[in-house]
Amino acid sequence: MNKGFENVKGTYDYLPEKQIIREKIKTVLQSVFIKYGFAPVETPIICMYDLLASKYSEGADILNEMYKLSDQGQRKLGLRYDLTITFSKLISSNPNITLPFKRYEIGKVYRDGPVKLGRNREFTQCDVDVVGVKSMMAEAEYMMMTTEAYKKLGIDIEIEFNNRKLLSGIIMMTLGNISDDVLRKSIMLIDKFAKLTRKELVVEFEKMGISEDKLEELFEILNLDYGSLKERLSKSDSELISEGLSEIDELYAYLAGSKALENMKFAPYLARGIDIYTGTVWEIFVKGRKVANQDFNLSIGGGGRYDKIITTFIDDGNEYPAVGMSFGLDVIYEILVLKDTDKKVSTVDLYVIPFGTSVESFNFVSKLRDAGVKVDIDKSDKKLKKSMNYANKMNIPFVIVLGEDEVASNTVKIKDMDAGTESSFSLDDIEGIKKYIEN
Amino acid sequence: MNKGFENVKGTYDYLPEKQIIREKIKTVLQSVFIKYGFAPVETPIICMYDLLASKYSEGADILNEMYKLSDQGQRKLGLRYDLTITFSKLISSNPNITLPFKRYEIGKVYRDGPVKLGRNREFTQCDVDVVGVKSMMAEAEYMMMTTEAYKKLGIDIEIEFNNRKLLSGIIMMTLGNISDDVLRKSIMLIDKFAKLTRKELVVEFEKMGISEDKLEELFEILNLDYGSLKERLSKSDSELISEGLSEIDELYAYLAGSKALENMKFAPYLARGIDIYTGTVWEIFVKGRKVANQDFNLSIGGGGRYDKIITTFIDDGNEYPAVGMSFGLDVIYEILVLKDTDKKVSTVDLYVIPFGTSVESFNFVSKLRDAGVKVDIDKSDKKLKKSMNYANKMNIPFVIVLGEDEVASNTVKIKDMDAGTESSFSLDDIEGIKKYIEN
Repeated sequence: MNKGFENVKGTYDYLPEKQIIREKIKTVLQSVFIKYGFAPVETPIICMYDLLASKYSEGADILNEMYKLSDQGQRKLGLRYDLTITFSKLISSNPNITLPFKRYEIGKVYRDGPVKLGRNREFTQCDVDVVGVKSMMAEAEYMMMTTEAYKKLGIDIEIEFNNRKLLSGIIMMTLGNISDDVLRKSIMLIDKFAKLTRKELVVEFEKMGISEDKLEELFEILNLDYGSLKERLSKSDSELISEGLSEIDELYAYLAGSKALENMKFAPYLARGIDIYTGTVWEIFVKGRKVANQDFNLSIGGGGRYDKIITTFIDDGNEYPAVGMSFGLDVIYEILVLKDTDKKVSTVDLYVIPFGTSVESFNFVSKLRDAGVKVDIDKSDKKLKKSMNYANKMNIPFVIVLGEDEVASNTVKIKDMDAGTESSFSLDDIEGIKKYIEN
Repeated sequence: MNKGFENVKGTYDYLPEKQIIREKIKTVLQSVFIKYGFAPVETPIICMYDLLASKYSEGADILNEMYKLSDQGQRKLGLRYDLTITFSKLISSNPNITLPFKRYEIGKVYRDGPVKLGRNREFTQCDVDVVGVKSMMAEAEYMMMTTEAYKKLGIDIEIEFNNRKLLSGIIMMTLGNISDDVLRKSIMLIDKFAKLTRKELVVEFEKMGISEDKLEELFEILNLDYGSLKERLSKSDSELISEGLSEIDELYAYLAGSKALENMKFAPYLARGIDIYTGTVWEIFVKGRKVANQDFNLSIGGGGRYDKIITTFIDDGNEYPAVGMSFGLDVIYEILVLKDTDKKVSTVDLYVIPFGTSVESFNFVSKLRDAGVKVDIDKSDKKLKKSMNYANKMNIPFVIVLGEDEVASNTVKIKDMDAGTESSFSLDDIEGIKKYIEN
């Protein structure tokens, strides 16, 4: 009887059929991160409560959703809710670290919040950040890395991007003299420009005391492509606007002629919600917002420049400009599953079933493993049919039944489980068997 | 000013120099696990308290050292203290899982206990288990897999092994009619046979009411090699002893002539502490108990057969025989560091320093990356010397300085940072540069 133990809400078991795909995603991402000069780090999941409570201005939400605990020494602790907080801590505790510091971390984070599609309580973040680079070359590198990573994962993407300086400049130019608070709220609202109707936006702006007539020009600009927008703003005397435009121009200069550029779409309304960003921001979507003919509007990654947060966190008089992004492991997994619903996966290529020859079979399998073949051996005393069924259920592509006759004649037959065909090999022809299986 | 945030006691940041080695260990282990037919799973770190409290007879200790927490819904939760508990849960919640089920999991576990060398509060376990196999072929597979894994990690090992049925049988035969409790305590005591003096052992046994004269035969047998022990016990009518001996014989039969056998040492006193084992047990040590001329007595892995625990946990009338082992990631890391104290590591092979040519350099680097070269580019406006220093500090083996002259002449010089030599290549000769760097 199942004792009825359940997983904590919003946490999951990943059985091999799922985990094999998740591991594949991690391996692809890691190899691309490394190629672009990011090195791995690992930071703790349990942290001092004070560290976790120190970071965000939107602290209240984070604090409510933080899992809190204490140890036997009654210290106040918590589980990390993102990897940026432990990354900031790592930089601040290593004052002699060589900058620029480029790291990636793939690790679990925790939020005790509402559970829905794409939002779990325990989930894995893949974060890639650089500290100590002012040049837009950093952003250009992220665009190219993103393009390569998703290409290797077989996912066509679209990268929406913007610049927060430009966005702030446009808002202040069009809405006139507004408070920091209204600016901040306007940014968060405009972030939903593509999702809300014009009417809904107007209603929300009116709640902040901004009348519809003032929004006309703003909305018009937000609908422009980059060329037209640049022309339109060419006579602006806003420093934010000119800095924003020049940063975008610099980014374009690095990306000229690259494959990344083909995926990029300027989105002057994009803010990426979170307060911390100070320059470039981007958000990644599946191209055409469809996977296997189903709508797929979830963001599958994104990032931006945040020049102030680590600077403020460390507060030693130096500047710590930073750019970082996240790849969504869970959402990428969902896409790969939707795309390949029929694909069977097995980690081994061959299954050897002994038939009265367990020691000989075990030796045979050992030789195959020494040669690098991924192979498993039946260890039951089951009927042959049951063992064949097992190989079938596990989707193992090739099977060898090794009976006394095979040992005596020094010959084995490899059964191709998909094709239903059989091929004969000498029992000693390890290399031949390996070649046949791996082709 | 560093704000003074500290890590929770017994938890650590792993900077790239460490993490690169840890990732390498994981990669090696995973590839070997997969070759032997074990597939990856992932289970939650936060679990229901009742699940975590359900497992061990030595529950009190575990419960004290468990990190406990609750969520916003006031559910009682805890952090897992090992991977066996979530593995048992996974098997029990998937009653239709295909057996034998072979999985590995590499994940973090938590124990709020004393911190010392080899014992942290947050640590990573690498567990490899199979459920549903009675045959000693399972154990034989573990011995071969262990041998291959440590060989690939460059660590010479010794595997001490024993059989718990044999050990129990010997104790009951020599000490006579003893209670289950005394048997259990005797096993735990004898587990320290190689560490305690004879006198210390006698004192401890006397506390249990067992006098020295009864211990004579026991101690004598525990000093025998397998051949002599088998002969000595050949006339025993203990069923436990004969089962234990026949299991060891079966294991030897599978391993005859293998490399694994050369590493194995029969240790009739070995129990592996933990109560759960029912048959074969083994513990892995560095050969000669020395690393880089320093004593190294810590166990670096181990495992055993536990036929009862999942059976009891699931309690559905079926048997769930199981064998499993752990590889100690943290301790393996310590060994590799001790062995290669001088070894410098960099994840990239080449560093390109633009000198007034940032766009051209960025394009050059992009081409190298497209060709698969692991390369980074200097993004500062630093003086050349500072950029060279950076490459040096990061231990990057090759450097290219790309100035306007190099662009004009379409030629680059690759500096070998170790040898101090330079080699010239055409700027377009991406394949030539790749080949040179990767050799």
